[in-house]
Amino acid sequence: MEQKQTTNETAPLALRRGVGGEAIRVAIVGYGNIGKYALQALVEAPDMEVAGVVRRHGAENLPKELEGYKVVKDIDELGKVDVAILATPTRSVEEYALQYLAKGINTVDSFDIHGKIVDLRRSLDKAAKAGGAVSIISAGWDPGSDSVVRTLMESLAPKGISYTNFGPGRSMGHSVCVRSKAGVKDALSMTIPVGQGIHRRMVYVELEEGANLDEVTAAIKADPYFASDETHVFQVDSVDALNDVGHGVNLVRKGVSGQTHNQLFEFNMKINNPALTAQVLVNVARAAMRQQPGCYTMIEIPVIDYLPGDREDIIRHLV
Amino acid sequence: MEQKQTTNETAPLALRRGVGGEAIRVAIVGYGNIGKYALQALVEAPDMEVAGVVRRHGAENLPKELEGYKVVKDIDELGKVDVAILATPTRSVEEYALQYLAKGINTVDSFDIHGKIVDLRRSLDKAAKAGGAVSIISAGWDPGSDSVVRTLMESLAPKGISYTNFGPGRSMGHSVCVRSKAGVKDALSMTIPVGQGIHRRMVYVELEEGANLDEVTAAIKADPYFASDETHVFQVDSVDALNDVGHGVNLVRKGVSGQTHNQLFEFNMKINNPALTAQVLVNVARAAMRQQPGCYTMIEIPVIDYLPGDREDIIRHLV
Repeated sequence: MEQKQTTNETAPLALRRGVGGEAIRVAIVGYGNIGKYALQALVEAPDMEVAGVVRRHGAENLPKELEGYKVVKDIDELGKVDVAILATPTRSVEEYALQYLAKGINTVDSFDIHGKIVDLRRSLDKAAKAGGAVSIISAGWDPGSDSVVRTLMESLAPKGISYTNFGPGRSMGHSVCVRSKAGVKDALSMTIPVGQGIHRRMVYVELEEGANLDEVTAAIKADPYFASDETHVFQVDSVDALNDVGHGVNLVRKGVSGQTHNQLFEFNMKINNPALTAQVLVNVARAAMRQQPGCYTMIEIPVIDYLPGDREDIIRHLV
Repeated sequence: MEQKQTTNETAPLALRRGVGGEAIRVAIVGYGNIGKYALQALVEAPDMEVAGVVRRHGAENLPKELEGYKVVKDIDELGKVDVAILATPTRSVEEYALQYLAKGINTVDSFDIHGKIVDLRRSLDKAAKAGGAVSIISAGWDPGSDSVVRTLMESLAPKGISYTNFGPGRSMGHSVCVRSKAGVKDALSMTIPVGQGIHRRMVYVELEEGANLDEVTAAIKADPYFASDETHVFQVDSVDALNDVGHGVNLVRKGVSGQTHNQLFEFNMKINNPALTAQVLVNVARAAMRQQPGCYTMIEIPVIDYLPGDREDIIRHLV
C-alpha cells in the first residue's frame, strides 16, 4: 500500500488514482503463459490487487487458479481498473492499448518487435495524453530490463561496442517460424549464444507423417529468420518433452570512459522467462501510476519507480 | 548539442538553460584526481563545454593541461555556468552545493558516505527548489551506477538476497585510515572480494624510521574500519610503486520473480576508478538539465537522461 511520495514529485494526474493506502487495481488482459505468471506476481505485490482477468472466452472453461477472481470478456465489467497488463500476443497490443487508454486506463505491455517500438510509442503517446493516462511499452526483459542495462552501460563508456548474447533458451519467434513450414507438426528453436552477439540455432521438429526431414531442414535454413545463423535441425518424437522455459542473457560492453580505454562491463542472468516478463509487467504497472500522461519505454522511467515502498527507505537501502 | 526533447517532457525550469543547440556550460570545482578525469570526460562530451575550473589556488602553479581554460578561485568569475561538478572531498560537498544552488547553478557530486545520503538529499532538495536548480548526489559508481543496477535487480526479483562484492582495487577510506596510524608514512589498502559481500583487506605500509610493524599491524587490525574483515599488513619500500587505479565490482542477486524461485542476476565490471567516476559525473551533469528543480539520487533519474542525443534515436538503438 506504500505509495508515499516524498519529494521531486509533481503529482501527475495518473498518480491520483490508487494512492493513499488504496491498492492499485490491476487487470490482466489475455490469459496465456504470461498472463498466468502475471497473476502470481500480482498476488505477491504488496501494493496491488487483482481487478480481474479479461479473456476472449470469459468465464468458460475456467482454469482452477482463476476461481475466486472476476473473469470477463470486456474490461468494463471489472469496475475501477487503474492499470491493464496486456498479456496478449504482441500484434494485438496496439489495438487493446488504444481502446483502454481512451477510457483513461493505464496500460503496460511487453511488445517485442524491436524495429517498431518507436512507431508504437508515437501512436500510444497521443492516445495516452488524450485519455489522461500512462502507457509503458516493451516492458519485458528484452526489450525491457536489458534495455535499462544497455543504456546505463553505454552512458558509462560512451565509445565502445556492446554485445547482447541470448540464451541458452527457446526463441518464440523462431519456433513459430518453424511451425509454419510444411510437414512440421510442432517445433522448438533454441537460441545458443556463441559470443559477440552471434547465435547458433538448435531446432527440434516433430514431423507430420510422410514429411521429409531433409526438405524441412532446407526450408528452415532458407528462411530469413535462420539464413544468417548456424542452424542445426533435429527430428524428435515429442517437442513437448523438451519444454523448458529457462532462458538467459549476457550483455557485454567494452569501451571508453572519458579518454580512458578498456573499461569492461557485463550483465548476466539465468531466469525463468515468463516469470521474469510477468514481474517486469507488474513493476511497470506500479511505475505507470507515478508518471505524467504519455507513453514511455523502460529507459525513460526512474528505476526507483519500479519498487513499492517509501522513497527514502529505498534510497537508504539501495543507493 | 543535441538536446531535442520529443515527448513526455514537462519543460522543467532547469531545462531552459543550455538548450536549443547551445552547449551545456560546466564548471569543475576541485582539481584533484576526479577533477582531472572530469576535464577529459567533458572534452569528449558532444553537448558540453568547459566553463572553467574552480581551485583553491586559482591559476597559481597551473598544470599543463589546464592551459587555455579559465582557472579561478570563485565560480562567479566564470560567467554563465549551467552545472558545477563538485570534484571536492566528500565532506565539502554540502557546503559548495548549498552555495551554488542558491545562485541557481545545478550541482552534481559523488558523495559516498552511504549512511548520510538521505540527510544530504533532504538538505540539498530544499536549497535546489529555493534556487530553481537541480542537484544530483552520490553519482559515482558506488554509490551511483551500481545503485541503479541494484535497484533494477531488486525489482526483477523482489524477494531474495543481493551481494555487492568490491575489488580488487584500493579503498580510499581504508587507506586514509591506515595513514592516520602512528609510524605510518604512506599506505594503500586493497579490497579483495571473497564472495557474499565479504572482503579481505591487503594493506601495504611505508613506515617512518623506527616504527614497529607489529605495533602498526595491531593498531590497524583494532580499528573499526578493519576489525571485522580478514586483514593482512605488509611493509613495502614504496607505496607509490604499487599505485594502480583499477577497480572492480561484482553485484549478484538470487531471488524470486512473482512466485518463481532461483532467478539469477549478476553485474560485473573492471574499470579505471576515477575515469568511471568522472564519466558518471558528466552524465548526471547532462541529466541535471532535464529534471525539475530538486535533489535526486541516480535511481530517481531515467537512464535515457544520462545520454546525449535525440530520444527516439536512443530508443531505436538501445531499447
